[in-house]
Amino acid sequence: MPRNGAVSPSHGEAFASRRRDPATKREAVLKTAAQLFLEKSYGRTSLNDVADRLNITKPALYHYFRNKEEILLECYRLGTTLIGETLDNIASDCGTGLEKVEAFIYSYANVMTVNFGRCVMRLDDGDLSSAAFAEVRNYKRKIDRRLRSFIQEGIEDGSIAPCDAKIAAFAIAGAVNWICQWYEPEGALSAEEIASQFARILTQGLARNDARKGVRGVSNQES
Amino acid sequence: MPRNGAVSPSHGEAFASRRRDPATKREAVLKTAAQLFLEKSYGRTSLNDVADRLNITKPALYHYFRNKEEILLECYRLGTTLIGETLDNIASDCGTGLEKVEAFIYSYANVMTVNFGRCVMRLDDGDLSSAAFAEVRNYKRKIDRRLRSFIQEGIEDGSIAPCDAKIAAFAIAGAVNWICQWYEPEGALSAEEIASQFARILTQGLARNDARKGVRGVSNQES
Repeated sequence: MPRNGAVSPSHGEAFASRRRDPATKREAVLKTAAQLFLEKSYGRTSLNDVADRLNITKPALYHYFRNKEEILLECYRLGTTLIGETLDNIASDCGTGLEKVEAFIYSYANVMTVNFGRCVMRLDDGDLSSAAFAEVRNYKRKIDRRLRSFIQEGIEDGSIAPCDAKIAAFAIAGAVNWICQWYEPEGALSAEEIASQFARILTQGLARNDARKGVRGVSNQES
Repeated sequence: MPRNGAVSPSHGEAFASRRRDPATKREAVLKTAAQLFLEKSYGRTSLNDVADRLNITKPALYHYFRNKEEILLECYRLGTTLIGETLDNIASDCGTGLEKVEAFIYSYANVMTVNFGRCVMRLDDGDLSSAAFAEVRNYKRKIDRRLRSFIQEGIEDGSIAPCDAKIAAFAIAGAVNWICQWYEPEGALSAEEIASQFARILTQGLARNDARKGVRGVSNQES
């Protein structure tokens, strides 16, 4: 199956079928648009491209969205909602701060492998109007604050070594956000494998347990 | 001192002075352009903007560079050279794989806080012509391979816990590359502090030493 447009036929079917289910059709528009934005960039994707891939006319598309920006904003909303739901679940769980951070990395990494999640971090939110831009930035800020609060919780409950929670949150967010730059849905690495290894490496570190204390020691030999 | 254009007066001086040192002037053009690219984006920066900030004419600029893309490519080259030099130094050092990875993170994070380094990861290399694009991608690929080889070395010498070197390299590169998205030269966090904490967190993990083994244990309680 070709990577480009691999899932499109099924999106097109939402329109080809006799069923008149507006929600399914709206979702098909969004999924197709998200895929095109990721393939060709937002700027180079036209509403005609979206309509063509769905085998519908451009006026049929206007039944669901007024313009391309409205589609982009909705992709952002769906992506950030996925992350937000994850955060709510984790926050309501018991467990140490470290466990929450680990669960966050695992879930967030998974979101970064699905198209709406990839859109949130890979598309340039500078393409949004200022009101929509403010909305998206606000979502992103909330995610960052939540992660920092989990780290802070871990420092306080003793599960996380003392560190600057802001810097640590940036390190984690960067590692996970970057997934959308290199992840290939049909590539050799599965989402599950990436998410588990990220959760482990970022919480437990690269160092082997028994090698941990030796690291600094070697370079600080008596001289 | 205002953030925008904070260092420009000194770049302008390279042209204002009586000295006729082409290398210094060329460097001033590059530094000014890099700063504008980061402030306004590459697309929104014109050669006139660069000339204006240096208090020179556009024809004077053409003495050093044929066009804007040539300046962009040179910024990429300078940034990747900074990273490359770091890698050469680390590779020639003795030490375990883990120590090399730690040194890499520390140095690379520092490069990500200087403008040429920030350009490498923040500007869109899709703005380059295909030959220049291939050159830049080649540099980036080399950096990734080098990091993976340090990780592999660590797995073999026992300093790094068994993991997928490719995934681990992506996690580290993502965390460090992301610095160019949030780092503010005049912000509260110093480059040194960011680099040290990144090197520690990514190699040693967030977990407190004595809490390390407990993490998985809590969720895997007998049930």
